[in-house]
Amino acid sequence: MNTCPALLMALAFACLALSQTQGYSASEDARIIAEYKREMELDHAKIARQLVHRANWAAVGSISTNKIVEDYPMVNIVSIDDSDANGNSTGKIRFLLTDLDFTGPDWEKNNKVTLMFTEEQTLNCKNHGKDPMEPTCARSMISGQVQRFDKSDRSYKPALDAYIKRHPSANNWIKAHNFYLCELIIRNIFVLDFYGGPHQVTASDYYAVQV
Amino acid sequence: MNTCPALLMALAFACLALSQTQGYSASEDARIIAEYKREMELDHAKIARQLVHRANWAAVGSISTNKIVEDYPMVNIVSIDDSDANGNSTGKIRFLLTDLDFTGPDWEKNNKVTLMFTEEQTLNCKNHGKDPMEPTCARSMISGQVQRFDKSDRSYKPALDAYIKRHPSANNWIKAHNFYLCELIIRNIFVLDFYGGPHQVTASDYYAVQV
Repeated sequence: MNTCPALLMALAFACLALSQTQGYSASEDARIIAEYKREMELDHAKIARQLVHRANWAAVGSISTNKIVEDYPMVNIVSIDDSDANGNSTGKIRFLLTDLDFTGPDWEKNNKVTLMFTEEQTLNCKNHGKDPMEPTCARSMISGQVQRFDKSDRSYKPALDAYIKRHPSANNWIKAHNFYLCELIIRNIFVLDFYGGPHQVTASDYYAVQV
Repeated sequence: MNTCPALLMALAFACLALSQTQGYSASEDARIIAEYKREMELDHAKIARQLVHRANWAAVGSISTNKIVEDYPMVNIVSIDDSDANGNSTGKIRFLLTDLDFTGPDWEKNNKVTLMFTEEQTLNCKNHGKDPMEPTCARSMISGQVQRFDKSDRSYKPALDAYIKRHPSANNWIKAHNFYLCELIIRNIFVLDFYGGPHQVTASDYYAVQV
């Protein structure tokens, strides 16, 4: 299914052939292979970061506590932002939740959520003639835990200010409906960006990317 | 939270006042109230139908069977279509799944899914200055069971033809990756289309709407 291991092996063999003619050591070969591998992984990490930064919202899955659909997976829309004070991407996915909506009570009971991002959120696939379910229409599923900000933490105000800059309506949400600021603690990232199945990206590779 | 019951009551009292002056019976009053109630419910049903028909895809939640995020809610993108042979809306949500993606193995283990649709899929909220998380940016969460089409059923070919008409890439999916056609058996519909919390819509009211 996955074409990347094959491609990686081809590149690795090419490196080995090159290193042998140049007299590189076995450890040097291993380093080159590791570098190639890392580069390929970082590409997927970069795609995840770009999807997150370009999106204004995520489709958020939670395990429902609503009596009507209890234990069903619920999917809600949550406005997100990963910007610093200057609007640059940090990768840190922040959002406002309230107990009055679906996601709020759900994560408090079972703190397992997945946020899905797709290139089609900006109509980029449609505008390039790609069906939204094609693997070439990039998507990322980021799973983890919701962490509520402590208002006394000094990172709280800058994070909220950056969020409100992108989502001015949030000014009203906070005033009227007890919304609270959260960040996703990332446990796993899947990226689909081409044929051959999903790639797994670690949180550290995701955060290390410069976007 | 919910403004509709208040509005409904006001309308109901207005009807009662009207009916008393015109000498309607108590059963007639009940009928008028029921009609108003039904009309209001059908509006939400209509919004759900419109969201489904305009969307090319849904954010599909399932309970994950993937070892890395087992029992997490998974959210995937699935191309959908509800058209008849002439492209008109039927409300029947059809989609192709494969065991090679996330959703396929998940529903086979635990057949509870939720499909989320939002007005922002067509950028209609952004283009009208509405934040995607505002309740006025309409969304619908439709929960139920996946039902795989029986290929020998005479509804199979027309449904597949209509799907492929909207998603021509599906021709390749079926050939190469064992995709199979499914329909959502609707158990519950939530619609958020204004301030005041979600509305529940029955499957029969949803299907009864003319779009």
